[in-house]
Amino acid sequence: MLESLKEQFSAHVKNLQNQISQRMKDLDVQIDINEDNWSRLDHIGEDGGGGITRAFEGNIFENAGVNTSEIKGKINPEFAKKLQGDSDQLWATGISLIIHPFNPKIPTVHMNFRMINQGDKVWFGGGADLTPFYPYEEDFSYFHGVWKKACKPYGNYDHMKKTCDEYFVNAHRNNEMRGIGGIFFDHLNTGDLKKDFDMVVDLSNHFIESYFPIVENRMQEDFGQEDVDFQLHRRGRYVEFNLLHDRGTLFGLKTNGRTDSILISLPKRVMYSYKYAPEKGSVYEKMMENYFPKSW
Amino acid sequence: MLESLKEQFSAHVKNLQNQISQRMKDLDVQIDINEDNWSRLDHIGEDGGGGITRAFEGNIFENAGVNTSEIKGKINPEFAKKLQGDSDQLWATGISLIIHPFNPKIPTVHMNFRMINQGDKVWFGGGADLTPFYPYEEDFSYFHGVWKKACKPYGNYDHMKKTCDEYFVNAHRNNEMRGIGGIFFDHLNTGDLKKDFDMVVDLSNHFIESYFPIVENRMQEDFGQEDVDFQLHRRGRYVEFNLLHDRGTLFGLKTNGRTDSILISLPKRVMYSYKYAPEKGSVYEKMMENYFPKSW
Repeated sequence: MLESLKEQFSAHVKNLQNQISQRMKDLDVQIDINEDNWSRLDHIGEDGGGGITRAFEGNIFENAGVNTSEIKGKINPEFAKKLQGDSDQLWATGISLIIHPFNPKIPTVHMNFRMINQGDKVWFGGGADLTPFYPYEEDFSYFHGVWKKACKPYGNYDHMKKTCDEYFVNAHRNNEMRGIGGIFFDHLNTGDLKKDFDMVVDLSNHFIESYFPIVENRMQEDFGQEDVDFQLHRRGRYVEFNLLHDRGTLFGLKTNGRTDSILISLPKRVMYSYKYAPEKGSVYEKMMENYFPKSW
Repeated sequence: MLESLKEQFSAHVKNLQNQISQRMKDLDVQIDINEDNWSRLDHIGEDGGGGITRAFEGNIFENAGVNTSEIKGKINPEFAKKLQGDSDQLWATGISLIIHPFNPKIPTVHMNFRMINQGDKVWFGGGADLTPFYPYEEDFSYFHGVWKKACKPYGNYDHMKKTCDEYFVNAHRNNEMRGIGGIFFDHLNTGDLKKDFDMVVDLSNHFIESYFPIVENRMQEDFGQEDVDFQLHRRGRYVEFNLLHDRGTLFGLKTNGRTDSILISLPKRVMYSYKYAPEKGSVYEKMMENYFPKSW
């Protein structure tokens, strides 16, 4: 059954990648899409799988990456020990996505779902989290609401929400979160492979519903220079999280992953400033309160 | 003698900080200077020293930090083991500087000189390196020429130049350097404390000569949007190096250093793009060749 589920997961993530790409094209008609089919060698120089990276640059979606990959083959034995299994044979397939919209009223979003098989161990990981720049709290409740609904049959929203709140944190910035969270899980293996598989596929199928209605609702909003300044400042915090703390990014770069596919997660324009503080009483000051764990 | 040299080193770096600040004000008359005198607690909550952070924002120097600090007191015992000595009493004083000019024809520069005393061990570290964005090779030769001259009495330019070429490297970007190097050294202790001290003070006194004449020579140069785009792209690589690889940055953040003083090193405006490549035959393509070790 394992081999069949692996094939199904590969097919599922590619299908999801196409659905999401189509939805982006429908909204941002003139968007540029740069697709790269890349392949890799494994630790001993044999076929190690590869991936499909799709880089988007448009008017609504300033830059985005919607990627799938299927890694297989022998991995470095020292690195193998740091994973769950004790085999140096690894198979890992997943979809990962990051969307940085141009308009600061539309939130940035990240999503990733993956299935991993090392020797006789199999596990799943993933989640989705939102990084908004404007205090439209109804959007945050909507996003969390979709994930709450998605998780309902499995009774795991509270746990996955808390894990997400604890993961996407800039410890060096007074424990501010990079955004307003969502859900996150790792090393998922309940012992019932088919059940885990079905759940992860089901969750991942809620991504489109969780995000694109927010985009459609906000894409016509006006914005000013102050909104852009706050967005670019928060994008700076996003870069800090990804390069200093994100395990996925460091994992990828340290295992000779394809750098351009990994760092596609970085936003096009970013701004840093010394001792940034939002103006007292401004919407940005209000927004800052949302970057700490909260119930939506 | 040690205590007297420590006092002299503290006075020296503060004096150098003032000289450099003055030089920047002379060139960029309306520059904003935001000075913070901060203090810290050591590992057991007692007086742990502090520092003077000077953040600059101007027309010529878009953003810059010229900082001194004097850390003292008890450090975390686990962390103490990772240093040179086996004591948990640390004293460390230094100057660190980063200047990001607005005009892409003026190079970015970084400099740092420090004296460290842990238990009965004393050592020095530091260096200066240049990150230009335009192939004015005479400027690179000039910068290296000043350091070659500075190192001449000590016969260590070749070694320090090589150490610098090997340190400021983005391994995940095909081993590109972040700039064109300079000099770098760490754990310097020849056994003759006074001699080491005199050399480090002497080297640090060459910084002003190594950099500001280049600024004066280039500050009136015209530039276009393509120059800015290349500058912002390379600043992205600068951020990647600082957050992924720079030991000083990670050391500071992981030991509860003052985040704003550490990340003052990041440039104000940055741009990332997927699979960046300079146009064939352009000056930027020519410039890229300089980001690998070369004799100047």
